[in-house]
Amino acid sequence: MLHLPLSIIQSWSRFYRGNFVNCLSGFKSVSLIGTINKEGDTNLSVFSNIIHLGADPALIGFINRPREAAPHTLANIESMGWFTINHIHQEIIEQAHQTSAKYDEGESEFAAVGLTPEWQAEIPVPYVKESLVKYALQLVEIIPITHNNTFFVIGTLKEAWIDDSILEEDGFLSIERAGSVTSLGVDGYYDTKRLARYAYAKPNSAPREIP
Amino acid sequence: MLHLPLSIIQSWSRFYRGNFVNCLSGFKSVSLIGTINKEGDTNLSVFSNIIHLGADPALIGFINRPREAAPHTLANIESMGWFTINHIHQEIIEQAHQTSAKYDEGESEFAAVGLTPEWQAEIPVPYVKESLVKYALQLVEIIPITHNNTFFVIGTLKEAWIDDSILEEDGFLSIERAGSVTSLGVDGYYDTKRLARYAYAKPNSAPREIP
Repeated sequence: MLHLPLSIIQSWSRFYRGNFVNCLSGFKSVSLIGTINKEGDTNLSVFSNIIHLGADPALIGFINRPREAAPHTLANIESMGWFTINHIHQEIIEQAHQTSAKYDEGESEFAAVGLTPEWQAEIPVPYVKESLVKYALQLVEIIPITHNNTFFVIGTLKEAWIDDSILEEDGFLSIERAGSVTSLGVDGYYDTKRLARYAYAKPNSAPREIP
Repeated sequence: MLHLPLSIIQSWSRFYRGNFVNCLSGFKSVSLIGTINKEGDTNLSVFSNIIHLGADPALIGFINRPREAAPHTLANIESMGWFTINHIHQEIIEQAHQTSAKYDEGESEFAAVGLTPEWQAEIPVPYVKESLVKYALQLVEIIPITHNNTFFVIGTLKEAWIDDSILEEDGFLSIERAGSVTSLGVDGYYDTKRLARYAYAKPNSAPREIP
């Protein structure tokens, strides 16, 4: 094992340390977040810190970087109160990553990277047509994280669209069948393969696999 | 595509809805969190909402469920101010999942599930000896999420221990080489395979793969 005390980690360049710390926390739930501003300009950006907060009420959030580094998605959610989250499958990882480029506010990432905005009744923000698992959220709260000027944006689930093949009989979603990827660090995209599901654990029983 | 409006999602049983919403947000960075209480009792519990917050300062957090559902890790961090986060590889997923059983406060999950506490200089909380990627954090802040009584626990990185084989020349960690898994929903564990890494994206350049 390699021991890396804080003094070593702090001695690294910003770029090297960014890669390291971003990977250390493990695989992430990368998705595309779709928003719109008051002028009707659509925006699409890749986010890799999607957070499951609870199922009842169904709350899902994400971490937005400091405002100067990533202003558009945050400003659009603040002014319009809605966003969509769209899974990324293997065929669209290049386009998804490209949305992280710093486009001007008036330029839609949908057109720039070659993805298609999709509109659904009663949802005022665009989905990604190509995405096979997607859902819409209404803003609940934006919590500023004072230690590094990031924001924890929390939404409440309003609807979901999922590929027909992924819903299991107990509500579990086998999203790997829709090709949903996971990410690592700031730039790594990974395919997945199920190892096991386990039944609810109890103190005096051995772990039991769900077939 | 299957359309699931909120009225349908709300009509489901707690169990079914829990599986669904937990999967909808995508793959998660599952790890074991090690803590200790003032009496010296060690505690180990699986958490699947580890959150990368920033690299400078290096801040990593996690979501703790409501206090009545998951009291020990939170109480230990509140009183001692430290915790470790330990990646889970394929050989220990059964033991890792078993730590989610509701053991009494005095009973250590390490002994109950068959994992080994490991102590390192200047770190007052236990690591998991079997884990191949692990790091220690000192508490920075616990943010109560009022909407569902969860907690966002934020720590600052103090040191890391990583398998010799995973550190790339640019600081990226190929944690899949150490077998680190990702999770889905409350009970699914997944192996991963790298699809691609992409260079920093710019508006007028095509995406470029990092070899």
